[in-house]
Amino acid sequence: MADNSEICDVIVVGTGPAGISAAVNLKILGADFILFGHSSLSEKVERSELIRNYPGLPEVTGPELNRLFAEHLSAAGVEIRNENVVGIYDMGDYLSVLTDKRSVNAFSVIIASGVQSLKPAKGELEFLGRGVSYCATCDGELYRGKKIAVVCDSPALEHEAVYLSSLAGYMYYFPVMKETSVKESDTLRIAGGTVKEVSGGMKVQSVITSSGESIDVDGVFFLKRSVSPSALMFGLATDEDGHIVVSRDMSASVRGCFAAGDVTGRPYQLAKAAGEGNTAAHSALALAKQRREEQKLQKIERQNT
Amino acid sequence: MADNSEICDVIVVGTGPAGISAAVNLKILGADFILFGHSSLSEKVERSELIRNYPGLPEVTGPELNRLFAEHLSAAGVEIRNENVVGIYDMGDYLSVLTDKRSVNAFSVIIASGVQSLKPAKGELEFLGRGVSYCATCDGELYRGKKIAVVCDSPALEHEAVYLSSLAGYMYYFPVMKETSVKESDTLRIAGGTVKEVSGGMKVQSVITSSGESIDVDGVFFLKRSVSPSALMFGLATDEDGHIVVSRDMSASVRGCFAAGDVTGRPYQLAKAAGEGNTAAHSALALAKQRREEQKLQKIERQNT
Repeated sequence: MADNSEICDVIVVGTGPAGISAAVNLKILGADFILFGHSSLSEKVERSELIRNYPGLPEVTGPELNRLFAEHLSAAGVEIRNENVVGIYDMGDYLSVLTDKRSVNAFSVIIASGVQSLKPAKGELEFLGRGVSYCATCDGELYRGKKIAVVCDSPALEHEAVYLSSLAGYMYYFPVMKETSVKESDTLRIAGGTVKEVSGGMKVQSVITSSGESIDVDGVFFLKRSVSPSALMFGLATDEDGHIVVSRDMSASVRGCFAAGDVTGRPYQLAKAAGEGNTAAHSALALAKQRREEQKLQKIERQNT
Repeated sequence: MADNSEICDVIVVGTGPAGISAAVNLKILGADFILFGHSSLSEKVERSELIRNYPGLPEVTGPELNRLFAEHLSAAGVEIRNENVVGIYDMGDYLSVLTDKRSVNAFSVIIASGVQSLKPAKGELEFLGRGVSYCATCDGELYRGKKIAVVCDSPALEHEAVYLSSLAGYMYYFPVMKETSVKESDTLRIAGGTVKEVSGGMKVQSVITSSGESIDVDGVFFLKRSVSPSALMFGLATDEDGHIVVSRDMSASVRGCFAAGDVTGRPYQLAKAAGEGNTAAHSALALAKQRREEQKLQKIERQNT
């Protein structure tokens, strides 16, 4: 297994109110942690017109609140690693987190990735790793010269779509946003609607669009700001709505895994998210310290035998 | 049972971050509710030097934050009823809340009374109603001309101590605060230390102070900003530290009863309290609406038979 020194205490996934709250607390608590997310912070907050129920800020607009959150992170000395987390793996004594750029290890992970604006398409989870991918930089190369469909739910991720179009033989592009900066070409078609279903045999063979059109493809990329919990981590208990099931201390069903914010369920509220991030930070760090101690003891035992 | 019109949706007990958060949300949700607490808000917040982990307010002093909370309540149009809640009773289809001034009914109650700075003395809960009282205006008259001990944990409650001294034959006063505005007299002694134990037979007969002194009294008043949950409501499940046991939706073991903030356990954090108040408001109002509907149906059934 990885050496103790290569494993950080906590990895926080997400830069909405829950992730920010967790990160600020971890910083104050002196934890060795990484915050993965988007430096533009939460799009959901950004789009909020007027927030009247975040105690202490009687009337605040979404953009104002995001600016205050950014100031808070900066004042606390917390840096955001602008990377997309595409998978979390249970390694027994620690967890491994895969982003579009690297793999890092932590004793605890806090999933604060929000709720999906984009519900998983039919077949999306079944074909994950068999033609469905969430990560352009991880898997793009596999589709060089091939025919792909790309669904994208954020302007912040369109550069990945552009990157994929530079590799693919032909690309069907499904932007979920109203406007897209991606241009059509001989090898890129901007398709109407969205991908409703992914189908195939051993591997993806086609996608079915919301207008019922079937398009043959070799692969499908879903470029989402947040991947659904069950796709992010295998075996994580979720409820019927796909929310991560957590205890009062914000621990999830996999040891070392914690969750906070909208991803744990309703009410989808700022204060609730910030509060859960706070609790998760304390719980996740306590477990990380315990696991680090356990590792030290194991190492000593191995040396003594 | 009481008429529907006499029962409000929700009663919130406490004006710390959790109670404020609950009240602001209930107001926005259009609930018929009452907020009981102290207009000076949380003493714990007030005494906080510098708060660095309340997301959105990078560095805020306790008094500043209390001022922002007060502004928020005022902007939202929420009024505080400056009354001490001394008991909550399960009436089957609704709850009855007793303050030092009145009794009011609600379909749901949110207990957001914080953690006790003053742990219950030995015997305090056993003798509650048999010589121990939390309410000067409710029970003071019973001790006219008699010998009493009065413990007080807040300057905001010293007027009750003064009121009791006007009734009592002799009063031993135990202020928990460093300074007191109450003056000694022929019939009032300011005692050192605090009350460690209450003892007696059928009724209170004496108190034992922290210095071991035994003083014969007919009754003991504990004037606390917040009464411990198990004294506040009979049968409410609490953990070994006296925190109210709650589910993820903030519901407690008695139907209609919810809790939020420090009273539900660690971490004792502002953001956690505010988040729980938010969740509790949503859960408590949903149940109140359901109970109101149930009552209407019962009334129609009674009329039809």
